[in-house]
Amino acid sequence: MKKVLLGAAVLAALAAGAVQAQVPADRSIKYRQSALTIMANHVGRIGAHAKGERQLTPAQLELSAQVVQDMSMVAFDGFIEGTDQSSGATKAKPEIWKEWAKFKGEQTKLQGETPKLLAAAKANDIKAIQAALGGVGGSCKSCHDTFRAQ
Amino acid sequence: MKKVLLGAAVLAALAAGAVQAQVPADRSIKYRQSALTIMANHVGRIGAHAKGERQLTPAQLELSAQVVQDMSMVAFDGFIEGTDQSSGATKAKPEIWKEWAKFKGEQTKLQGETPKLLAAAKANDIKAIQAALGGVGGSCKSCHDTFRAQ
Repeated sequence: MKKVLLGAAVLAALAAGAVQAQVPADRSIKYRQSALTIMANHVGRIGAHAKGERQLTPAQLELSAQVVQDMSMVAFDGFIEGTDQSSGATKAKPEIWKEWAKFKGEQTKLQGETPKLLAAAKANDIKAIQAALGGVGGSCKSCHDTFRAQ
Repeated sequence: MKKVLLGAAVLAALAAGAVQAQVPADRSIKYRQSALTIMANHVGRIGAHAKGERQLTPAQLELSAQVVQDMSMVAFDGFIEGTDQSSGATKAKPEIWKEWAKFKGEQTKLQGETPKLLAAAKANDIKAIQAALGGVGGSCKSCHDTFRAQ
């Protein structure tokens, strides 16, 4: 019980970082940039592996693909209205919220690609990994071209 | 093939963010802070759910617990030697690298706790989630008390 209470105190402090309605813009921006930083890093690891520049173990490969999938599922929670370029250190264009359905479409597209990468990684199938990376990378690029400032 | 090549170009750009040997200190710091930001956020979500302050769906609960587990497995890749407080905007004490075995022990402890949280989340068992949160939160606190500057 003591352990649970200790945990609860720690959690109360940590929960201050949770993205919820009415969170400050800088917190939303930090959250989504963090998730996208981690996603890009692990896409990069898998890409280096696929090109033979880096050798990941099957377990590392699967973990990185799981991380990519998970980040694709949670990163967009941080795109809260009012957190565009005018609100802080972010390249997020106001078009994200003006064309929300289109932005959501990009999100949905990415979320359809990352499970293919995870499946290919679990199968340790390099050709399938390369194809799935093309899908994921193309999705990143498409969204960045439209919705991220240079 | 065109799609794969497009993906490869995007990946080459993204791979620049990958944490590897000889990466600049600021990149290592950004990577680990990003992973720990995402971990803390999702621990916070689960904590709020466990306290009844926020209602997550079973799928959201499992996703958050998966994110917490994954981040516990990959965050420590960013603690590269030479990236303590003297190297940039980080609270990482030099003791991390002076007492590396102890630091690794904290990491191993956390990585033993997060799968319990994921299992409890998959079972949607609130009592088990609360107990597992105590373990995870206690592990965060133990490491921060020793190795993170105030």
